[in-house]
Amino acid sequence: MKPTISEQYLQNRYAVFNGGSTGEWAIQSIETITGQGLSKPAFLSKGNGHTDYKDAVWSLAGIASNERYVITEEKQQLLQKQEGLGRKEAVCAALIPISKSDEWWLMPQDRRRKIFEEQSQHTQTGLQYLPAIARKLYHCRDIGGEFDFLTWFEFAPEHKDRFDELVYLLRKTEEWKYVTHEVDIRLMLAGK
Amino acid sequence: MKPTISEQYLQNRYAVFNGGSTGEWAIQSIETITGQGLSKPAFLSKGNGHTDYKDAVWSLAGIASNERYVITEEKQQLLQKQEGLGRKEAVCAALIPISKSDEWWLMPQDRRRKIFEEQSQHTQTGLQYLPAIARKLYHCRDIGGEFDFLTWFEFAPEHKDRFDELVYLLRKTEEWKYVTHEVDIRLMLAGK
Repeated sequence: MKPTISEQYLQNRYAVFNGGSTGEWAIQSIETITGQGLSKPAFLSKGNGHTDYKDAVWSLAGIASNERYVITEEKQQLLQKQEGLGRKEAVCAALIPISKSDEWWLMPQDRRRKIFEEQSQHTQTGLQYLPAIARKLYHCRDIGGEFDFLTWFEFAPEHKDRFDELVYLLRKTEEWKYVTHEVDIRLMLAGK
Repeated sequence: MKPTISEQYLQNRYAVFNGGSTGEWAIQSIETITGQGLSKPAFLSKGNGHTDYKDAVWSLAGIASNERYVITEEKQQLLQKQEGLGRKEAVCAALIPISKSDEWWLMPQDRRRKIFEEQSQHTQTGLQYLPAIARKLYHCRDIGGEFDFLTWFEFAPEHKDRFDELVYLLRKTEEWKYVTHEVDIRLMLAGK
């Protein structure tokens, strides 16, 4: 008897991003920022734990999970400003898979938090781009994936420059010194 | 193409506890503390991501992961006092699977840390029982398991009373008000 996996987990928390010849998002570019790259299929589809991988050139899976660094006050600010995924005008998207070094993962919680926020202002910087840039984080380190995290972003075409600015600012931070693998996938809703 | 799972993860980070008719640990008792119980097979075997489940009545899988609450000073204290698993005299063991409520998981990091340590002294209490009680934590919430955590303990027979005391103290804490499911499995090295 194998370990059971909960249905709620497979349907609501497990996300899979399949690159292949079909999908609701057209892949516009795939840029390797650090480490190994990914091949560029024409489309990307988003699924859950029941998704079929038949058509995929690559599949990246991640888990929606609890917060690891955000504190009460920051969470309130995020809830006040953020908007959900799937807005009609948000026809542009980005999927940014990253991994961090062993040095990062071996640090105790307070040291990681200090680098993440007090030194790098990760949450405070993201807040400046709300509600324009909607964002959802998926964790993959604890499911043994090729990356540690997948972050999915959605925004309207007129906010593309702001998104580029956000990514530029984050990549200059102390936190990003621990990023060992990063790929930047840009997408547009198919047919737009 | 399915998402790839790293070999290092399957071999070194993924742990599976199989209850069945064979195994290196004899199951002495299984006590349901909160929620649904588990059946009582004769033996328990520990394996990794390549373990075969054929003989198992139940299988519980978990992941060794990074620390979520322990801060620098606490980590130093733990490293100074703790001893590893597999000590010759530590022929007694316990496996305690628990789950926490949605209320717990929805709290931001600072609120969970405050309950875990400032109110419940989880780490400081555990430190009082080192090096007698060796301990290893496995996470299962992010792999969709039946429980959120599995904690594995090893100790010598003369420290059984101290182990009972540790478990008693933890169950009285504020943190344990968020525990919704808990089973207490006691074991002895087979043939001892």
